[in-house]
Amino acid sequence: MKEDKPIIRSLLDVDFYKFTMGHLVFHHYPDVPVRYAFKNRTVRVPLAENIDIGQLREEFDAVRQLRFGKSEIHYLRGTNEYQERMFSEEYLNFLTNFQLPEYFLEKDGKQLRIEFAGKWSEAIYWETIGLAIINELYYKTKMKDFSEFEFDQVKANGVLRLAKKIRQLKNYLGITICDFGTRRRFSKEWQWYVIRTMSTELKKQFLGTSNTKAAMDYELLPMGTSAHEMDMAMSGIMHESDEDIRASHSRALEDWWNQYGQGLSIALTDTYGTDFFFQGFTLEQARNWKGLRHDSGDPFEFGEKAIKFYQDYNIDPAEKLMVFSDGLDIKTIIKLFERFNGRIKISFGWGTNLTNDVGFETLSLVVKLVESNGFGTVKLSDNLAKAIGDPDDIKRFKKIFGYTVETYTECKV
Amino acid sequence: MKEDKPIIRSLLDVDFYKFTMGHLVFHHYPDVPVRYAFKNRTVRVPLAENIDIGQLREEFDAVRQLRFGKSEIHYLRGTNEYQERMFSEEYLNFLTNFQLPEYFLEKDGKQLRIEFAGKWSEAIYWETIGLAIINELYYKTKMKDFSEFEFDQVKANGVLRLAKKIRQLKNYLGITICDFGTRRRFSKEWQWYVIRTMSTELKKQFLGTSNTKAAMDYELLPMGTSAHEMDMAMSGIMHESDEDIRASHSRALEDWWNQYGQGLSIALTDTYGTDFFFQGFTLEQARNWKGLRHDSGDPFEFGEKAIKFYQDYNIDPAEKLMVFSDGLDIKTIIKLFERFNGRIKISFGWGTNLTNDVGFETLSLVVKLVESNGFGTVKLSDNLAKAIGDPDDIKRFKKIFGYTVETYTECKV
Repeated sequence: MKEDKPIIRSLLDVDFYKFTMGHLVFHHYPDVPVRYAFKNRTVRVPLAENIDIGQLREEFDAVRQLRFGKSEIHYLRGTNEYQERMFSEEYLNFLTNFQLPEYFLEKDGKQLRIEFAGKWSEAIYWETIGLAIINELYYKTKMKDFSEFEFDQVKANGVLRLAKKIRQLKNYLGITICDFGTRRRFSKEWQWYVIRTMSTELKKQFLGTSNTKAAMDYELLPMGTSAHEMDMAMSGIMHESDEDIRASHSRALEDWWNQYGQGLSIALTDTYGTDFFFQGFTLEQARNWKGLRHDSGDPFEFGEKAIKFYQDYNIDPAEKLMVFSDGLDIKTIIKLFERFNGRIKISFGWGTNLTNDVGFETLSLVVKLVESNGFGTVKLSDNLAKAIGDPDDIKRFKKIFGYTVETYTECKV
Repeated sequence: MKEDKPIIRSLLDVDFYKFTMGHLVFHHYPDVPVRYAFKNRTVRVPLAENIDIGQLREEFDAVRQLRFGKSEIHYLRGTNEYQERMFSEEYLNFLTNFQLPEYFLEKDGKQLRIEFAGKWSEAIYWETIGLAIINELYYKTKMKDFSEFEFDQVKANGVLRLAKKIRQLKNYLGITICDFGTRRRFSKEWQWYVIRTMSTELKKQFLGTSNTKAAMDYELLPMGTSAHEMDMAMSGIMHESDEDIRASHSRALEDWWNQYGQGLSIALTDTYGTDFFFQGFTLEQARNWKGLRHDSGDPFEFGEKAIKFYQDYNIDPAEKLMVFSDGLDIKTIIKLFERFNGRIKISFGWGTNLTNDVGFETLSLVVKLVESNGFGTVKLSDNLAKAIGDPDDIKRFKKIFGYTVETYTECKV
């Protein structure tokens, strides 16, 4: 844990959805100018006092020196699990010569202002890399005076907490898990340990990981589909009128389907609120798409709503998949399983509490798309604590999308 | 933890008191025929079903192939902490050519019959080696189908339990500890970890270790004086009459003083009961000897008795040292410290619960001298559960030493 190597040592050490989205973007919207901004939602922790900005710069600079290796490109080319040869040769050529674009980093009072701007097709890869760096550096800084024995205790805590999770999961053989914890991981080393262990211990209950490099290293399924940024960027691309913005949401879904078909057809429902999503999701889409991903708001309500939605369309919910991925812990996972098992297929994308449960508090850090094509973007979500955007834009988007939610629950992870 | 190397890989991986006693024996009683016998006081555990006798034989055979290395003999020659050049050249020459004598091993129902017989000067070195082998093999066997993650959990439990001990000890800076845990250690590797960690974390609170090799490896003080076997063997050497046997106890004390003077003058009081000991320990001895070691019976009663004993001789107990070494745990250590701190110097020789606290039950295994010079030996101790000897001999010795104790407390360690 005390090594001085850069935190990110491979451009494949990134969430797989950056490739599935990046591939679509490369082909359809490569030059759209975008801006991603970092945000520490755990405002009580003054990040600028807990991370050395010079060190952070070194880490960011180091990752800009990285290039995709031959075997890494081979690995992507060989990815076949969702669609035959899903990544085009043009795209793989693009990646072969790819370098992460420049970043913006400065102190902003007690916090950090970090932004990644550029062409969408290039800036898109910073998100999970930037977050993993900031997180790991934060903990490295916390532990900089730790003795070897203190490190051993951190690991021991991590091992026993992981063991407890695994014991509980073994009691529910129907629960399937995948690791979504790259961005909030305690460290790269620890995420690898967790993945290796989950995979060995849980076998078929552990479906795979969102981390492309870890999937490659451990012969696992790389997992991921799309993120809010697809909807959000599209609202900047189609920004002529309120109607246009409203239509941009369907456009994002259509693009996705046209690119990947059923293979990656898990829809994220909460960008502008789940109610709007269900209004717009057509019978054909409901039939074709494999399922939905839940990422904010009450997951039990969401599940019930989704089941009802399918039933209203006369679709058997038991044929559909619901992926839960919002701040899960083992208790919630088991409760959700007990509620929905047998009624609808379910799976869990487990992030922070899986890869960062070693005894330290965790931070709710995000990197979100805030500008697309010159326009401010908006994410509403089903929990206003997760809302993103300029207040005026948020107001406008609420109206456009008929958003009425008033839930505000602090984000722990 | 999964290595296949022999458990004992150095003849110095032995408790230091085997050398302090062995040295005296070498000079004064080298050829006395003795027999040591192994005993599992945790009778509910059928050892023969938990240890492969073939593997045990391999371990015993491997250790008989070992010889002392040049640097190991240098280390012993250089030992200066208790007395100038305490080990004679003759003795060191003897060790240079030393090989452990043969052993006897067979199944005895569900238990194991293990004996080490031979000249006292040679058989004496088996005790802690034999015990460390049996203990580690027992746990190795328990864990033979463990996954890597299960091993990690064992270590994690050990680390967190050790951390708790260390945290508590740091709250009592007056408490000093030494490791007496060779014979009951979970594994050699784990004992080394514990010693390294205690030494780094507790600094001056950690005085040293009974394990000679660990002391050498970690620049620590090798600790140890004498054991019950000195008194017990002497009863076989002086066995003409009851008077003779009675006198053999004083003779053992005199031999020890003549050999090492004040340096190693910590008397073990309970071979034939502490009451007899205090009757026979003269004013001169009480003045000269640094202190006493407690190894059975109620340690609080013992401490009070010892303080009163010194006071009756008009000796300030605060100048004397009491070493507690009977089945300690952190709670007892703190209680004893709170009771006796300031009244008499105290220190703790911590064994099983220090080096074998990783989540498994521990066994109360001993190797004791049972025959000397053709006669059965006896140890009474202040707890009859620890008594050793043929029932008739025990009866006779009780009478000879005026032993009246009726305490019987099962040995947990």
